[in-house]
Amino acid sequence: MSTIFTKIADGEIPSYRVASDDNYYAFLDINPLTPGHTLVIPRVEKDYIFDLDGDTYQGLWKFAARVAEAIKRAIPCKRVAVVVLGLEVPHTHIHLIPINSEADVDFRREKLALPEVEMKAIAKAIAGEFDKE
Amino acid sequence: MSTIFTKIADGEIPSYRVASDDNYYAFLDINPLTPGHTLVIPRVEKDYIFDLDGDTYQGLWKFAARVAEAIKRAIPCKRVAVVVLGLEVPHTHIHLIPINSEADVDFRREKLALPEVEMKAIAKAIAGEFDKE
Repeated sequence: MSTIFTKIADGEIPSYRVASDDNYYAFLDINPLTPGHTLVIPRVEKDYIFDLDGDTYQGLWKFAARVAEAIKRAIPCKRVAVVVLGLEVPHTHIHLIPINSEADVDFRREKLALPEVEMKAIAKAIAGEFDKE
Repeated sequence: MSTIFTKIADGEIPSYRVASDDNYYAFLDINPLTPGHTLVIPRVEKDYIFDLDGDTYQGLWKFAARVAEAIKRAIPCKRVAVVVLGLEVPHTHIHLIPINSEADVDFRREKLALPEVEMKAIAKAIAGEFDKE
């Protein structure tokens, strides 16, 4: 059975897409720590990032860098933090989180719930920057 | 002036080294979140990871994967988490943190202070696994 992230990447479950290619997919976290919090995944289903084959692993980080640069241009922030935890969904995902202080990256604090119109606008802004490259 | 991390990589400031090559250096965080918490840095001084040149960036992630695999073999844990925040020291560094739950990655909780003999033993165990490859 497909993971929830495969269903998202395949469009079976809707998402706020920010970037996509044949091997990778990026979309907004629906429970963001900060506005613009994005998840980057490989299309291949592999639970643990360090179990990815070398090419997919390297390509994932290359794709994530492009997404991070797009986020930085679209969302006012000091920088984009990178977090890979992955004990919840068994499909590798990189969190890219626009931050202004290290306290912004606290997975135990209450997540934001942004209205759909705002999520759409954020996704569109990041996607627009991604496509500019 | 060199950053504190350059001084560590050059051996001017002592560290619990776990891995090293011409371009990258890995050593134990002296205020670890969990035993085995390691920092991986490029020798080149660049504040923001996404400002690294493409080859150094890709090489850094390749090196970090090797270190993460060594940590996983040396330290009992479910997996090795990856965190890049970097608002404190202006020299790119990847945190590799052995975790058993997502709550282990909480930068606001009190850090561990392990005795020197234990830090040395941990570094030696990870370095031994790194060198086995």
